Amino acid sequence: MTQNKHKIINDPVHGFIKIPTDFIFDLLEHPFVQRLRRIKQLGLTSLVYPGATHTRFQHAIGALHLMNQAIDNIRQKGLTITDEEAEAAAAAILLHDIGHGPFSHALEQSIIPDLTHEDISFILMQRLNNEFKGKLSLALQIFKNQYSKKFLHQLISGQLDMDRMDYLMRDSFYTGVAEATIGTERIIKMLNVADDQLVVESKGIYSIEKFLIARRLMYWQVYFHKTVIAAENILVKTLQRANHIAEKDSELFAAEALDFFFRNKITRNELKDGHDLVIEKYTSLDDDDIIVSAKAWINHSDPLLSYLSGCLIKRGLPKVMIQDTPIDGRLIKKLKLNVQGLFGIDESLSDYLVYQGQICNRAYSGSDEKIRILYNNGIIKDITDSSELFNTSLVTKPSVKYFLCYPKECEV
Amino acid sequence: MTQNKHKIINDPVHGFIKIPTDFIFDLLEHPFVQRLRRIKQLGLTSLVYPGATHTRFQHAIGALHLMNQAIDNIRQKGLTITDEEAEAAAAAILLHDIGHGPFSHALEQSIIPDLTHEDISFILMQRLNNEFKGKLSLALQIFKNQYSKKFLHQLISGQLDMDRMDYLMRDSFYTGVAEATIGTERIIKMLNVADDQLVVESKGIYSIEKFLIARRLMYWQVYFHKTVIAAENILVKTLQRANHIAEKDSELFAAEALDFFFRNKITRNELKDGHDLVIEKYTSLDDDDIIVSAKAWINHSDPLLSYLSGCLIKRGLPKVMIQDTPIDGRLIKKLKLNVQGLFGIDESLSDYLVYQGQICNRAYSGSDEKIRILYNNGIIKDITDSSELFNTSLVTKPSVKYFLCYPKECEV
Amino acid sequence: MTQNKHKIINDPVHGFIKIPTDFIFDLLEHPFVQRLRRIKQLGLTSLVYPGATHTRFQHAIGALHLMNQAIDNIRQKGLTITDEEAEAAAAAILLHDIGHGPFSHALEQSIIPDLTHEDISFILMQRLNNEFKGKLSLALQIFKNQYSKKFLHQLISGQLDMDRMDYLMRDSFYTGVAEATIGTERIIKMLNVADDQLVVESKGIYSIEKFLIARRLMYWQVYFHKTVIAAENILVKTLQRANHIAEKDSELFAAEALDFFFRNKITRNELKDGHDLVIEKYTSLDDDDIIVSAKAWINHSDPLLSYLSGCLIKRGLPKVMIQDTPIDGRLIKKLKLNVQGLFGIDESLSDYLVYQGQICNRAYSGSDEKIRILYNNGIIKDITDSSELFNTSLVTKPSVKYFLCYPKECEV
Amino acid sequence: MTQNKHKIINDPVHGFIKIPTDFIFDLLEHPFVQRLRRIKQLGLTSLVYPGATHTRFQHAIGALHLMNQAIDNIRQKGLTITDEEAEAAAAAILLHDIGHGPFSHALEQSIIPDLTHEDISFILMQRLNNEFKGKLSLALQIFKNQYSKKFLHQLISGQLDMDRMDYLMRDSFYTGVAEATIGTERIIKMLNVADDQLVVESKGIYSIEKFLIARRLMYWQVYFHKTVIAAENILVKTLQRANHIAEKDSELFAAEALDFFFRNKITRNELKDGHDLVIEKYTSLDDDDIIVSAKAWINHSDPLLSYLSGCLIKRGLPKVMIQDTPIDGRLIKKLKLNVQGLFGIDESLSDYLVYQGQICNRAYSGSDEKIRILYNNGIIKDITDSSELFNTSLVTKPSVKYFLCYPKECEV
Repeated sequence: MTQNKHKIINDPVHGFIKIPTDFIFDLLEHPFVQRLRRIKQLGLTSLVYPGATHTRFQHAIGALHLMNQAIDNIRQKGLTITDEEAEAAAAAILLHDIGHGPFSHALEQSIIPDLTHEDISFILMQRLNNEFKGKLSLALQIFKNQYSKKFLHQLISGQLDMDRMDYLMRDSFYTGVAEATIGTERIIKMLNVADDQLVVESKGIYSIEKFLIARRLMYWQVYFHKTVIAAENILVKTLQRANHIAEKDSELFAAEALDFFFRNKITRNELKDGHDLVIEKYTSLDDDDIIVSAKAWINHSDPLLSYLSGCLIKRGLPKVMIQDTPIDGRLIKKLKLNVQGLFGIDESLSDYLVYQGQICNRAYSGSDEKIRILYNNGIIKDITDSSELFNTSLVTKPSVKYFLCYPKECEV
Repeated sequence: MTQNKHKIINDPVHGFIKIPTDFIFDLLEHPFVQRLRRIKQLGLTSLVYPGATHTRFQHAIGALHLMNQAIDNIRQKGLTITDEEAEAAAAAILLHDIGHGPFSHALEQSIIPDLTHEDISFILMQRLNNEFKGKLSLALQIFKNQYSKKFLHQLISGQLDMDRMDYLMRDSFYTGVAEATIGTERIIKMLNVADDQLVVESKGIYSIEKFLIARRLMYWQVYFHKTVIAAENILVKTLQRANHIAEKDSELFAAEALDFFFRNKITRNELKDGHDLVIEKYTSLDDDDIIVSAKAWINHSDPLLSYLSGCLIKRGLPKVMIQDTPIDGRLIKKLKLNVQGLFGIDESLSDYLVYQGQICNRAYSGSDEKIRILYNNGIIKDITDSSELFNTSLVTKPSVKYFLCYPKECEV
Repeated sequence: MTQNKHKIINDPVHGFIKIPTDFIFDLLEHPFVQRLRRIKQLGLTSLVYPGATHTRFQHAIGALHLMNQAIDNIRQKGLTITDEEAEAAAAAILLHDIGHGPFSHALEQSIIPDLTHEDISFILMQRLNNEFKGKLSLALQIFKNQYSKKFLHQLISGQLDMDRMDYLMRDSFYTGVAEATIGTERIIKMLNVADDQLVVESKGIYSIEKFLIARRLMYWQVYFHKTVIAAENILVKTLQRANHIAEKDSELFAAEALDFFFRNKITRNELKDGHDLVIEKYTSLDDDDIIVSAKAWINHSDPLLSYLSGCLIKRGLPKVMIQDTPIDGRLIKKLKLNVQGLFGIDESLSDYLVYQGQICNRAYSGSDEKIRILYNNGIIKDITDSSELFNTSLVTKPSVKYFLCYPKECEV
Repeated sequence: MTQNKHKIINDPVHGFIKIPTDFIFDLLEHPFVQRLRRIKQLGLTSLVYPGATHTRFQHAIGALHLMNQAIDNIRQKGLTITDEEAEAAAAAILLHDIGHGPFSHALEQSIIPDLTHEDISFILMQRLNNEFKGKLSLALQIFKNQYSKKFLHQLISGQLDMDRMDYLMRDSFYTGVAEATIGTERIIKMLNVADDQLVVESKGIYSIEKFLIARRLMYWQVYFHKTVIAAENILVKTLQRANHIAEKDSELFAAEALDFFFRNKITRNELKDGHDLVIEKYTSLDDDDIIVSAKAWINHSDPLLSYLSGCLIKRGLPKVMIQDTPIDGRLIKKLKLNVQGLFGIDESLSDYLVYQGQICNRAYSGSDEKIRILYNNGIIKDITDSSELFNTSLVTKPSVKYFLCYPKECEV
């Protein structure tokens, strides 16, 4: 074990982060992980919160750090976690996001339909497992929740996983929304294991409540900020339009990896089957390809593509309405007529400029994955039976809002 | 106006704090305010959170700072607040806590029964008004909510007053409970005035929710921490016992100002009427008197007083049970019998060692004072009609818990 | 003045930042400024400090914020600064970096030789002045130090300018090198003006010393970190090689704006004269163009270009030696021979892989621009006559170090 | 080992602090350590920086925490430190300040002449060693630098000891002088051991420079702030006057433990020999005794004592001059005449009101204890031969300043 690999990384959120083993260091150096340096954690959110330029790479390292802390803490409480299990859990959290495409969630399913980023992460992890001669087998089992110690999976994907812990802290730090700070250190100290399941000791309940409300605040104030929604929709519409034009116009410029996906309609299965070329192209695609392509499209002869690209690059974002009730169809109709006039386009194209959608945020859903509270007397309860706050429709019922975007040139 | 008075104070919570006017500076220098340097903001909480040694003095300055920010912000929104009103509001918030006795809330009503610290603050403010030849008249009107611009009173005492804003930030900072940080700067920016009432602009709702949950977390994790409850009850019991002994034992030592209150049963009216000697003694009483007296009592011949004082000084705190249901009377009975044996005391005295009580925390009560939300269309709603979180029994229904303390020497 | 323009921006470093006037808001929205969102403040430093993904855009807004604070503070000390001057100073600091090319300093003079980023900023500001019908004339005078109130220029470019204040705070924040925090708020409060020159009140001396040492620490620990040097040199070498190949190979891909500069050797004068096309291309060039081009070059047939691009994209950085004395020529010779064998290249090409250079850091040079200390008695001294720390060769004598880079495949 | 003793303490400076062993927990609970809760770390500094109400108790725990981190780090570098040694070092740092009297340094040698607080700490540690049946023997050896592994002593008392690391961080945090933040975590990571001596790895040099300059800044901005000097001198003069009066006036009130030292002139040897009563009284003496006594003295018939006590309690601090040259004797004479008239006192008493003194700060003295730098090639150099900054008279030559205090009622 060479000294070189005992790397310590300085992170503004967590301080010094130690890379625990040589294998984890090798994974970190792999181009699949290095690519995450070029994918912004929060997509286009930096158009609203300029500080939020942090990347998936930082998040992956931060989540790795919290995983190591959680494992240390659980071991100190007397539970056995082998070194092999610890390394597998560390590998799995480090790699959990390698499937993300450009701008993270913003373009999810725009490049390859019907595959979530988790699906793609799993495919790429399998590929790495081959490359590293099976050293990721246990990590894959844990990732897929096929390993007996369920709590290891729950630390990677669950109501209180290290992914959420890191992204909430990090997004709050980089956006400057300081009031959303969560008590990660305290929550991790309160974690324990009972019957192979992750539990929280009862005196941690208020920190969990706080965590939940901070998450809710981040949703409405950052993730679903109306200008963020506007920006991400402009991005999606720009890509759709370019993709559509590419079908007919073989001259349309697109950065290399993006061009590949425009020219070859890659299906879910082609990636799943791990075609080498598809994998190679996917893992060379990042935020830069989109930006460089959009800059070129500004001068394209299609007025819609040119307009949309300009909005993206010069931050000429649409107006947005958000409300608790569905958008009035008459308003949409009126705005579509309006843009047809303004932009001289057919009705069929007005969808590129005037569109609605809905956003949905549920703080806690006990149906898929629970938060279990461990009492001093050994009893375990679901948090909805422990906390007055959780025991309300607020956190279990999804909140739905409706939005409408239209060009800023329109008059309502 | 001399340069000397343009003082800037360095505060670890808010940074540089500017004292706005000469008159406010003169108030700050007055012994009534300087006394607050010797009264801990959180009583005996530093026995649990050692960092929490901050004083009422710091809090008074911090609240003054936030008041100045709130007034600046409201003025920028186009509302007129005269310089006289601004100074009066600043004076009122600076002085709002001068009535606190030793260890803040811990001994409230132990020294002078039936007077809250707000009552005493008002009496002392009237005294200062005489001394400063009426310059506090408007501040007194605002403090008593007798001034037409109701929002000025609401900034001093209300659901979103500058008192709460400062103490939540400050207590979170000094205890190290970082997850309770609130978005003070943002909340202040969202404040506005409508019909002379304080309102919050609607996009601030999530910050208000966060503020509420942070407050709730501070209650259960700090203010009602079971060891804090134990410590504060030991303090009350020690004073009670000393007071009782003082009635018969003229030799019992007590620090000067405390001795005065032991020897002269001061009633509500004697302070209210502003007897000079009573005022003088009250305003020279602080935390130090209690500690010095308790150190002397450790060697007193009364075993109870000696035991209780020792617990306080040497941090020999009782055991505490906290539960959602009332304490079982049989358990109390059993423990009282136990201490009678252990300490060789009569049943009548066992109340000093075994006692129960209840703690109650209500996040928001719309009945006395409301949080009003201002929507873009000009409509104002109570927050319980605006926020899903507030619209639950959680925040409106008081939470009650029951506690039982008994000496650590007892076996349950 | 519409409400819309009274924008407040949330910055993780300074908190809420207010855009002071409509004109400043219009500048902020201009594509020349928006482009800075796509130029990283610290070039490739994020390869070493992953948190350091902040952009020139954030820095521009942060410096604007500090300028507003400095002006407020100086006005409060009784000096007159007109609204027009305040807006001009704000505009000048907002625009001071618009001339930066991709990756900030890393590629300075690689795209257009012989022009510093300040030169280009000035050219672009003139262009904006035309566009905004002369509204930037005063800002240009201040920027060029041709305005009578010299201190306004010194706030933009000087030993204690708002540029340095912001970048030191921001770089320290984003790298996580917390010990380099400086007392910006305090230094700004200590600023004053005497004889139209910026001065620091004498009680601020220790904060200035601290600022100087923090800056020195940032130089050696971040800006001149050996891996940062390695990364930035790889970037320069990659561009050089691509540029060289482009001369012969008309097929070489480069992102559009970069391609323009490869194909047309733009001289200093062509930009200076403000040719429209040159300006258009320069202001559409950003970090993304470099990354997308380098990704394409990985598959190029030239082994050097392919190797260098791969190093950049996959973080295969060279080894670096840094020492106080010049590098031994024999070692360089030996390494060059070594790479000729390893890479099968001519001697003439070995410069792309083995190269030396020097880095130079001078904390304070009184020759160009001074720090003046104002004493209570009105006397002004240069800081080298006021501070024992400044009065040493340490801060006035430049520190020079020598570095050598060579491929990690080499054995020394 | 009971669960109860695995205490975790929440510290606003370092976060969660773990008490490493049961024995350390028992020491922490001992009244000698608990007394430190009632001794302010920075004496009367809170009269200038209101936030600085932190206590020696917090500092002791903080230094303990850093010691544990330093030991962990050194062990990870391959050096053997036995559990017994680790516990002894932890005990020694926890107890290093138990000898401090009221208001820390302010009254050092005022209560018991000729004994430093370190002397008294050692005496009290010996007493504890008896009480704990020799379990502190190794800690005592380390404390006295009589143990073979010198670095353990250097971690407790040296240029880079955990005492300084904690107090600089803590004092900077509580005063709000944020720019004095030091890179404790980084410095601790750079610590190593060579030949049983503490060394710093060479890449830590800039952090050490930063540490030194931060310390220097704290000295001039906080510890030697002129109002702090004024306040601490008022405290000393008040005690002197009271002590003098006590010699003749048997009625003079003083809080119990203070009274003991007034009435019995305790010599160095009486404490050294460990007389039980002297120890008992010393360890019950704290800040509160001084405050309560001074409050009583305000009404004393001696006008000097009354005046001085009033200054202390009501913050009526003297004026202070600080300069680089000795104070002019004629000015002192003039002021003394002035106070004789103003206060109607003899010349012999004017020393209580007009006094001079000097303050001295040396950043680094290689003569007593060195900072050793370890280079990659194994060579060790003194830092004055490694750092350009240390290689200057600045840090090795003591800085001396002269101060003069006189009542604010005087005219100069």
